[in-house]
Amino acid sequence: MPTKIPVTVLGATGVVGQRFVARLAQHPWFELVHLAASERSVGKRYSEACTWRVPGGQPFAGCGERELRACDESVATRVVFSALDAPVARELEPRFARAGALVFSNASAFRMEADVPLLVPEVNADSLQLLEVQRERRGWSGAIVCNPNCTAAVLVTALQPLHERFGVEDVLMTSMQAVSGAGYPGVASLDALGNVVPFIRDEEHKVELELAKMLGRMRGRAVEPAALRVSALCHRVPVLDGHSESVALRLSGAPSCAAVSEALATWRAEPQLRGLPSAPPHPVVVHTAEDRPQPRLDVERDAGMSVHVGRIRPCAILGLKMFVLGHNLERGAAGGSVLNAELLLARGMLAS
Amino acid sequence: MPTKIPVTVLGATGVVGQRFVARLAQHPWFELVHLAASERSVGKRYSEACTWRVPGGQPFAGCGERELRACDESVATRVVFSALDAPVARELEPRFARAGALVFSNASAFRMEADVPLLVPEVNADSLQLLEVQRERRGWSGAIVCNPNCTAAVLVTALQPLHERFGVEDVLMTSMQAVSGAGYPGVASLDALGNVVPFIRDEEHKVELELAKMLGRMRGRAVEPAALRVSALCHRVPVLDGHSESVALRLSGAPSCAAVSEALATWRAEPQLRGLPSAPPHPVVVHTAEDRPQPRLDVERDAGMSVHVGRIRPCAILGLKMFVLGHNLERGAAGGSVLNAELLLARGMLAS
Amino acid sequence: MPTKIPVTVLGATGVVGQRFVARLAQHPWFELVHLAASERSVGKRYSEACTWRVPGGQPFAGCGERELRACDESVATRVVFSALDAPVARELEPRFARAGALVFSNASAFRMEADVPLLVPEVNADSLQLLEVQRERRGWSGAIVCNPNCTAAVLVTALQPLHERFGVEDVLMTSMQAVSGAGYPGVASLDALGNVVPFIRDEEHKVELELAKMLGRMRGRAVEPAALRVSALCHRVPVLDGHSESVALRLSGAPSCAAVSEALATWRAEPQLRGLPSAPPHPVVVHTAEDRPQPRLDVERDAGMSVHVGRIRPCAILGLKMFVLGHNLERGAAGGSVLNAELLLARGMLAS
Amino acid sequence: MPTKIPVTVLGATGVVGQRFVARLAQHPWFELVHLAASERSVGKRYSEACTWRVPGGQPFAGCGERELRACDESVATRVVFSALDAPVARELEPRFARAGALVFSNASAFRMEADVPLLVPEVNADSLQLLEVQRERRGWSGAIVCNPNCTAAVLVTALQPLHERFGVEDVLMTSMQAVSGAGYPGVASLDALGNVVPFIRDEEHKVELELAKMLGRMRGRAVEPAALRVSALCHRVPVLDGHSESVALRLSGAPSCAAVSEALATWRAEPQLRGLPSAPPHPVVVHTAEDRPQPRLDVERDAGMSVHVGRIRPCAILGLKMFVLGHNLERGAAGGSVLNAELLLARGMLAS
Repeated sequence: MPTKIPVTVLGATGVVGQRFVARLAQHPWFELVHLAASERSVGKRYSEACTWRVPGGQPFAGCGERELRACDESVATRVVFSALDAPVARELEPRFARAGALVFSNASAFRMEADVPLLVPEVNADSLQLLEVQRERRGWSGAIVCNPNCTAAVLVTALQPLHERFGVEDVLMTSMQAVSGAGYPGVASLDALGNVVPFIRDEEHKVELELAKMLGRMRGRAVEPAALRVSALCHRVPVLDGHSESVALRLSGAPSCAAVSEALATWRAEPQLRGLPSAPPHPVVVHTAEDRPQPRLDVERDAGMSVHVGRIRPCAILGLKMFVLGHNLERGAAGGSVLNAELLLARGMLAS
Repeated sequence: MPTKIPVTVLGATGVVGQRFVARLAQHPWFELVHLAASERSVGKRYSEACTWRVPGGQPFAGCGERELRACDESVATRVVFSALDAPVARELEPRFARAGALVFSNASAFRMEADVPLLVPEVNADSLQLLEVQRERRGWSGAIVCNPNCTAAVLVTALQPLHERFGVEDVLMTSMQAVSGAGYPGVASLDALGNVVPFIRDEEHKVELELAKMLGRMRGRAVEPAALRVSALCHRVPVLDGHSESVALRLSGAPSCAAVSEALATWRAEPQLRGLPSAPPHPVVVHTAEDRPQPRLDVERDAGMSVHVGRIRPCAILGLKMFVLGHNLERGAAGGSVLNAELLLARGMLAS
Repeated sequence: MPTKIPVTVLGATGVVGQRFVARLAQHPWFELVHLAASERSVGKRYSEACTWRVPGGQPFAGCGERELRACDESVATRVVFSALDAPVARELEPRFARAGALVFSNASAFRMEADVPLLVPEVNADSLQLLEVQRERRGWSGAIVCNPNCTAAVLVTALQPLHERFGVEDVLMTSMQAVSGAGYPGVASLDALGNVVPFIRDEEHKVELELAKMLGRMRGRAVEPAALRVSALCHRVPVLDGHSESVALRLSGAPSCAAVSEALATWRAEPQLRGLPSAPPHPVVVHTAEDRPQPRLDVERDAGMSVHVGRIRPCAILGLKMFVLGHNLERGAAGGSVLNAELLLARGMLAS
Repeated sequence: MPTKIPVTVLGATGVVGQRFVARLAQHPWFELVHLAASERSVGKRYSEACTWRVPGGQPFAGCGERELRACDESVATRVVFSALDAPVARELEPRFARAGALVFSNASAFRMEADVPLLVPEVNADSLQLLEVQRERRGWSGAIVCNPNCTAAVLVTALQPLHERFGVEDVLMTSMQAVSGAGYPGVASLDALGNVVPFIRDEEHKVELELAKMLGRMRGRAVEPAALRVSALCHRVPVLDGHSESVALRLSGAPSCAAVSEALATWRAEPQLRGLPSAPPHPVVVHTAEDRPQPRLDVERDAGMSVHVGRIRPCAILGLKMFVLGHNLERGAAGGSVLNAELLLARGMLAS
């Protein structure tokens, strides 16, 4: 890989934007050339414009002196990572795609559009076929590739090997989600400390829709959603990073817990086989200790890109229960989006 | 009620024992005459022997100067409340029952014995018929009456009106439980702070068994467990008091959310009709705000005796989802046990 | 007390405003007639306009159906409690005072004005002499009476008996303050969870100035600030309610710890002697357990009106160290303000 | 450095022991050959015997399969790191020293012995002269080198450059200490959640004594403690890692805040000059943002070896105030101890 691909981060000051910067500032394939942010930060140094919230490592990933740019076409590199909020993303991301950028978007704005891949490389790399449809339909020289909602990203990674091997029929997922999922300032401390909030706006709906799209199949030039039934119950808990998801599921053929565990633990997919830089050695780490995984002890492993599964046991109603954990800002946001871009590069799809 | 009934608390120094003392020190029907504790506390003043952890009110409920007694027959009043740990309860509670005491036990030791009522007064007051069986079989002049596990106590209170009205077929309950449920010192802060622990020993099994017993029916001289299927997924979260339970359930006839809400909100049972001192006005408080109930904001209401239900909504798999909250130390422990004794007194069953 | 005095709460929806409502809805001397709030809440029912955050008791103190009024002269009862933010208070409180209201203000806007009493009834009731000055100077038929900043209110209550008995020369106070002190939404959970923030805007300055004013003396028609040196170091910690203050102080004559403890424990002042409804039995509760007081265990005692002192011990530098705790929303805000009004009523100063 | 020095960790399963293992498993100079633990863990695999609590990196630092050894002379390499509790350390560490080991001890057992260096390499490397005294007096072929209490380690690092440049006369330090400082299980969650505990057994005394010893000077063959006055006020707060210390101090000559800041920021000592592997680039990082440092945002920097200072400002009583933060398990324990060993190796003092 002789020269690095220049990339831009839109929304670089937010909680997800910072994770993008942290990953891209030292990426083996990409070179972070522009940090862009909203109007009120433009022209400021990065370290002036926000508080660095990524644990460990160098503050601002060494980019503290960089000047923040506006989110306009002047920063439209071929590869653009977007940590914009949905309303802004809906307006700006198409401009970048029209200007030729491959926009790897963490926003919800375009996830459910029929011609937009909702991509998790281990799960539905075939959905990249939609890019051709998207370009034709929209006339863009670039494109938008979305990664899913953080909760859905973690869940689909734990389900895909089971869907491949057995078929998933029903998924009932109860989440205990970290406050960092709401960004900054996000959840008020008076709501979070010592509390459980049983509501996260739109979250249950997003999980239900996105999961079906991601577990679906390409049928001609469209994704046919998976036929499974999904029910999500979403809660906020006083955890900093890491979404916990307690899952009950019905699998076709009612496989044993041992078979489920084996399917999860041995699964490797295209990112692992290609050795993509952000891919964890195994997408799913299976825990056998009776009280694991736990967000505080496990979520940072493999730079937050592994999804952890433990407590695989029978369920009297749906057949199987298990506890799933993943990093909402890494596998569920910035890390997932960077992995998407790595997949396209590895497949030779970045050339314009 | 001319004279008060003298009562004793066994295990008065623990987290649940203190709640018993707080309730009984100012109870209109009962007079707290003995506080008993384990060997190492006997002879100490109550305020010396432990740290008072009940919020609000007077420290030690005004009993700080009382001398702690041993848990032996010398404190065997007709009514005895037991906050003993299960292994100790298994040994000591029968001695008290043999000595003529009605032991209202919060321990798990005898809950699943066929001749022991597992009583929540609003739910299964008819199970008190077991007392006759128990006395015959065991030859005791007293008896043991158990209240359920804290998680099961909260859940069964929310389910009973639905079981009566519609019939409950399946219950999938995912708990987010408070640290006070593990007593003191209980959960280490290194495990609790900013974390979710997906395992509580024996909890899922207890909930599944106890729920079926409580929702069952008297059939001749025994309880026939309810035929429903129960699946519990239990987790510890950094909350002080109040167990949150996210529930999906299948009801016979698939009633509407409005019908479910109405059944919960209008339900009143024997404790309400008799006006028992510890009974809340309604066993279940239905919340309509989209983000309620919450442990921090709601669990102390009605001295922790109400069970709160919110977010009643359809479930794609089981038909109905809702969020349930109750106080693990009050409705789920001491308050529940005191309510049990009030029921027996109101029914005239305390005479020996 | 045949008829109750009608009173109004300005800013009734905020964290402090709710505490005012909770206290006044069942006050023996005052009758809460108007709840007023900012423009966006006017006309709404109280229960619609905000989330009730006072633990225990009835939600909205039974006032949930009341209609919120605008903060204008139409709600200008003789006694008005203000939980307005400082900039709004600066504009509106004088209007109420001009309209004849005695405004008991929790805002910082007028605290340091030379003619405004900064009142803690146990500490500086003589500062009420300023009211005459204030009316003359400003030509108001009403007046403004301030209570201090929450941190200063707690601290001054612990210091006054020592100042009276020995004289306080130096006070070095390091605070660990609750998040509720910042209101709602206030501190972001990403800043609060598992963290210490070593800065609260203006707090150190307020404490230093207000303490000197409150411990000062009336000298003619003005307060002469106390000559002591004060140094405050303020921090936010993940505690819900209750400001902890670790204090080192130099007292004249270097009294023994026993003498200090005795001076604190035996102190009673005008509110105690008059039996004001919101006055705690003793302004200061002295703890002897080596690890007390603690916010979680002690701050709710006496409805949050006691100040707790423990760990009285020698300091190698200033002579004495102790740990102080008080309720920032009660003794430090709403409760303090209501106590101020009670004092004026008991002294016959409410007649216009 | 052709071959690595074999080293042993005593007490490898505890919170500090794990930090030793994490540092030594990939150390450029040392090779971790033995992990030793208490009787009940001997013979188990490391991953069986404890829960790994070091965030990030590989679980068990890749040593999960190692068999735990007993803490006896069979594991007495020339360099031994001890994370033993004080009572055990008092008994076992001399045995290792007698057997020829240089014991780098994190325990309090021998810290205040006159012939034992209480070493922080940036602060008092000259105290290594005590080793000769120690060997003569005790007849050991090895020796014991202690690192200080975690709170004192952080504090002394912030004070040394000021002591060198100006002279420290008075130090009043109020700590807000992390729960990890108490080990596992340590602080109960019922004590920690949303609370401040104003007492940590022996902590204030240790800080006061150890600070004076470390800031002292070699005088002949003994350390003459510094003449400064130290007063410590220690508190536990719900923070996982990182001790916050709010400090007021009197410096000789009353230097300006700018001079203090400059003295701190520019200070470099022997570990920096020698480039020891565990030495941070600067022992003290000075923060200029008004609300920094914060444990959650700053403590992991430089692998927890930097001490952070911010909010340097005048104090009305002692002249200067500042906020200090350091990692209790790294700079304050394992990292400090490893740095001590690195210093001895770099100075050629490891040869027996």
